[in-house]
Amino acid sequence: MENPVLVEVTRGNRVESRHRGMVVAVDGDGKVAFARGDVEAAVFPRSACKAMQALPLVEGGAADAYGFGDKELALACASHSGEPKHVALAAGMLAAAGQEASVLECGAHWSFDQPVLIGQARTLDRPTALHNNCSGKHAGFVCAACHGGVDPKGYVGYDHPVQAEIRAVMQHLTGTPLDRDDCGTDGCSIPTYAVPLKALAHGFARMATGTGLPPARARAARRLVDACMAEPFYVAGTRRACTRLMETAPGRIFAKTGAEGVFCAAVPEKGIAIALKCEDGATRAAEAMVAATLARFFDDDPAVADALMRQADHAMKNWNGLPVGDVRVTEALRG
Amino acid sequence: MENPVLVEVTRGNRVESRHRGMVVAVDGDGKVAFARGDVEAAVFPRSACKAMQALPLVEGGAADAYGFGDKELALACASHSGEPKHVALAAGMLAAAGQEASVLECGAHWSFDQPVLIGQARTLDRPTALHNNCSGKHAGFVCAACHGGVDPKGYVGYDHPVQAEIRAVMQHLTGTPLDRDDCGTDGCSIPTYAVPLKALAHGFARMATGTGLPPARARAARRLVDACMAEPFYVAGTRRACTRLMETAPGRIFAKTGAEGVFCAAVPEKGIAIALKCEDGATRAAEAMVAATLARFFDDDPAVADALMRQADHAMKNWNGLPVGDVRVTEALRG
Repeated sequence: MENPVLVEVTRGNRVESRHRGMVVAVDGDGKVAFARGDVEAAVFPRSACKAMQALPLVEGGAADAYGFGDKELALACASHSGEPKHVALAAGMLAAAGQEASVLECGAHWSFDQPVLIGQARTLDRPTALHNNCSGKHAGFVCAACHGGVDPKGYVGYDHPVQAEIRAVMQHLTGTPLDRDDCGTDGCSIPTYAVPLKALAHGFARMATGTGLPPARARAARRLVDACMAEPFYVAGTRRACTRLMETAPGRIFAKTGAEGVFCAAVPEKGIAIALKCEDGATRAAEAMVAATLARFFDDDPAVADALMRQADHAMKNWNGLPVGDVRVTEALRG
Repeated sequence: MENPVLVEVTRGNRVESRHRGMVVAVDGDGKVAFARGDVEAAVFPRSACKAMQALPLVEGGAADAYGFGDKELALACASHSGEPKHVALAAGMLAAAGQEASVLECGAHWSFDQPVLIGQARTLDRPTALHNNCSGKHAGFVCAACHGGVDPKGYVGYDHPVQAEIRAVMQHLTGTPLDRDDCGTDGCSIPTYAVPLKALAHGFARMATGTGLPPARARAARRLVDACMAEPFYVAGTRRACTRLMETAPGRIFAKTGAEGVFCAAVPEKGIAIALKCEDGATRAAEAMVAATLARFFDDDPAVADALMRQADHAMKNWNGLPVGDVRVTEALRG
């Protein structure tokens, strides 16, 4: 199946580049509300499923034992920019479990956000694992292990109890059996499991609605989704799409990006969740796709729908600030 | 026409992302030696045609008058990383014409190369126009104007004599009539003209072979191509694809990237040139495509062909240095 062109990038009066992709929105029963492209294709959710991966932190009691509030839970679900507040909070989560940064197995990298990177370059010799965009997720893994009496060493491994429990959570939420054959290694070294795009959306719809989940899991899932919506800065950061999308309609939109053009989102009040992937892995296109797809579910609130469409369709400027073209979604994602 | 998938990005044992594109190789007569996808589609060459845009600098006598050698001519054709040697040479070119950085109209930006950016952040308050990747090209424009007795002010404008002359050069080399309807604004504010991909390749084949060009233009074109091949660092920089490709077979490969997934290249000894565009604008894919396409023309030199294919197909590692997948060209670009 050919995936349709969902986003165009223009220059002058021409289309310069085109992005194909697949998008699906489903409700808690898995009923499809909107679909474009091959939504049965298996995709690696990458960081878009961090809220699923954070469930053991809450369900096992570590979050309560360590006194974690919305900020800590949001950071456990985050791909953050390594801003000072992100780094300090990740360190604080580890400290609550009596751990230090050296326990983290995610590797280190400079911020992906240029202004933050420049600030880091001026104040750091080199970044640490705390600056890794995944440090909150990894701190959550370590906290879950420590609270559960499990040695965190090797927690990124497929066979470690932390990853085994996450695999079970992912299978349950997505209804998809997962094994080594479905497994890739993520940028931060943990397993990532290929699941059908529709199943991924269904997993987030279950998290947002609780449909079909045992009460404890439903409560933990909604607590994580609500924490992200309450503290969008801690899910991403300044200038970042996830933060901006959630700030567009506070408490009404959950949104989380993943590498290689993945995005997951939910509108809990509408009982739906969205999963999408840009075929070529482009973040700029995935961001436009998720904004336009979210807008469909705010047809009863034009201010929110318009604000989302301004994120889907936007001008590009050059180094002199001159408009040179647009990023815009195609008819396939409109109206 | 659907463009074929030319590059795949894998993770674990799955294809995670796919890049479509069009590629064409032609000789000096415009005869097609290799083609994939819609090679008649009009594309903005962006920075890939900088060697064409540098022709007036040589043809008008400015390069000789100001004593420019291979390094200066390579920088005039460059999208450089803003490394100290690039910045100093751009300033030197302007000084030769009695000008300073304030004459440049390209805007300023931090280096696109992370290690260079970190060095800049630690030594500069902010980047200047000399750090712009296009500063050598713009310095060349200013030098051509000054030597020709033309006020450089406004040299980025469509109607300025500098851009009018470049437009005439582009029309001649590509055999394509160009006007405002074909014109977009580039990142550095100069006009960029949409031309059929095959015509763009033909223009570079003419430059590399001189076929059908007046002797003075043929000499100037070959001088620029040779300068880039002689000084590949000044065409791009440390860690950069253009530099690496040209260093793979010194004096035998010309290669120049452009934004939004464009690449042009030539193998002068074989009398051919290549133009390609990744449909979605991805640089990682365009780099793989050009390396694999160049390799086709070194079937008589397996060491070069193998070195090029190692640039086309390569492993990706994560923050811990673990292999997570590959970038690789598809069968459409092999053998």
